[in-house]
Amino acid sequence: MAPRCDAVIMSRIEAPRDETTSNLTDRLLAGLPADAVLVDPDVTASYANDMASFCPAGTPAVVVLPRTVEQVQHVMRTATELRVPVVPQGARTGLSGGANATDGCIVLSLTKMDRVLEISPVDRIAVVEPGVVNATLSRAVEEHGLSYPPDPSSWEMCTIGGNIGTASGGLCCVKYGVTAEYVLGLDVVLADGRLMSTGRRTAKGVAGYDLTRLFVGSEGSLGIVVRAVLALKPRPPQQLVLAAEFGSAAAACEAVCRIMAGGHVPSLLELMDRTTVKAVNELTRMGLPESTEALLLAAFDTPDPAADLAAVGELCEAAGATQVVPADDAAESELLLQARRSSLVALEAVKGTTMIDDVCVPRSRLGDLIEGVERIAAKHGLTIGVVAHAGDGNTHPTVCFDAQDPDECRRARESFDEIMGLGLELGGTITGEHGVGVLKKEWLAREIGPVGVEMQRAVKDVFDPLGILNPGKLF
Amino acid sequence: MAPRCDAVIMSRIEAPRDETTSNLTDRLLAGLPADAVLVDPDVTASYANDMASFCPAGTPAVVVLPRTVEQVQHVMRTATELRVPVVPQGARTGLSGGANATDGCIVLSLTKMDRVLEISPVDRIAVVEPGVVNATLSRAVEEHGLSYPPDPSSWEMCTIGGNIGTASGGLCCVKYGVTAEYVLGLDVVLADGRLMSTGRRTAKGVAGYDLTRLFVGSEGSLGIVVRAVLALKPRPPQQLVLAAEFGSAAAACEAVCRIMAGGHVPSLLELMDRTTVKAVNELTRMGLPESTEALLLAAFDTPDPAADLAAVGELCEAAGATQVVPADDAAESELLLQARRSSLVALEAVKGTTMIDDVCVPRSRLGDLIEGVERIAAKHGLTIGVVAHAGDGNTHPTVCFDAQDPDECRRARESFDEIMGLGLELGGTITGEHGVGVLKKEWLAREIGPVGVEMQRAVKDVFDPLGILNPGKLF
Repeated sequence: MAPRCDAVIMSRIEAPRDETTSNLTDRLLAGLPADAVLVDPDVTASYANDMASFCPAGTPAVVVLPRTVEQVQHVMRTATELRVPVVPQGARTGLSGGANATDGCIVLSLTKMDRVLEISPVDRIAVVEPGVVNATLSRAVEEHGLSYPPDPSSWEMCTIGGNIGTASGGLCCVKYGVTAEYVLGLDVVLADGRLMSTGRRTAKGVAGYDLTRLFVGSEGSLGIVVRAVLALKPRPPQQLVLAAEFGSAAAACEAVCRIMAGGHVPSLLELMDRTTVKAVNELTRMGLPESTEALLLAAFDTPDPAADLAAVGELCEAAGATQVVPADDAAESELLLQARRSSLVALEAVKGTTMIDDVCVPRSRLGDLIEGVERIAAKHGLTIGVVAHAGDGNTHPTVCFDAQDPDECRRARESFDEIMGLGLELGGTITGEHGVGVLKKEWLAREIGPVGVEMQRAVKDVFDPLGILNPGKLF
Repeated sequence: MAPRCDAVIMSRIEAPRDETTSNLTDRLLAGLPADAVLVDPDVTASYANDMASFCPAGTPAVVVLPRTVEQVQHVMRTATELRVPVVPQGARTGLSGGANATDGCIVLSLTKMDRVLEISPVDRIAVVEPGVVNATLSRAVEEHGLSYPPDPSSWEMCTIGGNIGTASGGLCCVKYGVTAEYVLGLDVVLADGRLMSTGRRTAKGVAGYDLTRLFVGSEGSLGIVVRAVLALKPRPPQQLVLAAEFGSAAAACEAVCRIMAGGHVPSLLELMDRTTVKAVNELTRMGLPESTEALLLAAFDTPDPAADLAAVGELCEAAGATQVVPADDAAESELLLQARRSSLVALEAVKGTTMIDDVCVPRSRLGDLIEGVERIAAKHGLTIGVVAHAGDGNTHPTVCFDAQDPDECRRARESFDEIMGLGLELGGTITGEHGVGVLKKEWLAREIGPVGVEMQRAVKDVFDPLGILNPGKLF
């Protein structure tokens, strides 16, 4: 999702603005080119939201699109002087409202800072600006025989800066971990416009507190990332996929436990529950048997993936799989993954709207989570499909509802919350990879407790004493 | 190194104490058993230092050895009320003075909190108390087919709490990363005695700021870790080692670059320079050829390590190796590793005393670092051997000197500092895995700059407003 309508440059004369906005715009224009400052309300309104449902968004006063670190510093100095809130944005593909505008804010879109500055195969690092699209980086490093593993579903659109802001995950995490594990160092513009470097460009380093990791996942509330040093991995062999059908979600979860306890390291281990399988069947006519109550997809990118798939296939059968289908090659693998890829679209087709939850539980509790979600769906009379990064215990229970039906909306929100409560009960977290944003801020306090909230707020105050950085998010 | 002399319990009547210490001891004893409070000066003096050279240490007022979280909370509440500094300690194997006592402090030794509370093969986690020795945990998880990779040289003695405090590394890091990457969640007693939980026990989680990582490597300056949830890996196959001899350090570094740029993932990639090879030869009579100017050790724990070693052996030869010796089995591998294992002892034998530096540079600059260290050694007329976790660019230039010779001591310290300066010039860090402690605190400011120092100090103030947690370290 590239920034919409940014070709429509503000007209300082024609756009109706009040005095405050006018002053703000004039100050911004003192350090930014005219085409980097948008004030046309029709244009700025298009920057108000990310992709989350049920998240209020305000009306930005102005949208800025800086191209240099100095321009970002100018924006932050201006914001500090005028006490104007700043909402940093990447591609706005987030699912928690973390990039939603607040009234009168400066939307600081980093999408124009989109250069890959360096790729080093010896040091296995890339240095990038925050607006680089995940897929652009992934393809650029591939040419050097390298891989940047983090692969959120939105990887064709989302930016590295957004990935860092939300510490995003993806399908690869079961083997390769999340974004946080690939961020070695950052250049950050602080709230007052000063530039701070954190971390390093070396493989190791323990000089001082790990502020790099503090910024990763901080949802733009501590500073503006303007440059990142990212760790890369050697490009792995093409993965080979296996699909296993089960007569119950419990059996599929048992297979997940056996695979992980057996010491296997799949490059992907995804689960779709009955509801999701049915929705996918209806949308895509893939012809999955109606008796399939859960579908497990496992992949390996090891030197001998067929051998690994065979071993995992046996574990699936021992756990009760009704059918095990290993792919023979990349094309067949891709076909098997289609079911997973179309899950969210298929669930959206059920009722027109979805709310995607993001509860992560210890993988030993995955079965309990899915069972509990079925109970919650029945209680509220709703369809809730579970798609899960099963190897990580990270589930996306997806509530399907009719947004035109107020009662259904209420029940959707209630069930969404009950699922988070269930996740906490099971020793899990309210968010595995999507972040807190606006959507889950009441729940953050329940997860981390009053002492945790107090200390986190105090850390926020250190970096943002005036409270101008993405206010109303997280806490 | 278990706490020394802790069988000698204080005698409250016999030990000479001033009034302040007496009051402190009485207050501590209100919440701790008598055998957990040591005040005999001969005993407490034995807790004054870790293993760093050139680091001043003060005289502790008292040493406490709590066994429960509640007892740690009592210690911290007491310290806060009486404004007494607290120095947390593990096994005191650190190399930067980070665990050195300050005058009148409470030494808080966590060595008695040494239980492995849980090991879960399905969730691939262990839950431990801070005093668990690294080797104890490693062996305990091995029985479950699992591995806890971080392996500092002192792994037979050092504690997990100490590892967390210094974010320690080891030989395995080139493939498996450092301690920080294995810490999922922490229970921390804050300066005022309150208990805070950070992080999670799930594979993923992004709820709020990553305070877990903030504590890892914070050298006991932000709070007292009393429990940790650690990530585990499946136990890898036994590694197979290759040794390659080179006619120059530059050629060995070139081999390192080719191996890493070639996409190989060794489980170990260590380099010893000419000085180290010579010292090892002299100590152990291993019979390495005198013509060897650098020795490279590479290992693989892959499904087919022999094939990987063959490929890496070819790269070594292409880079100019004079001899390549791949091991056939585990026993031969162990033999090859002996040279590396005896390096530090061998360098210590040169002059009686060593100062071990810990500079990490981008691995593409490894050759420049080693060349620069040779220059610094020549300038100061000193022997400096370089042992390096070459795959990480993490070098341990080890300055050999006669501690009885004041001029040599001065030159040792100067060359030690010049090596850090060189590391920074080459885009590296002053510490890859040993931490800042007392030894490098002047240098931390040079690495992270004034804004970094200001923000780090402010973060410290959030968690330790009275400045009682390990004062005089880091900053």
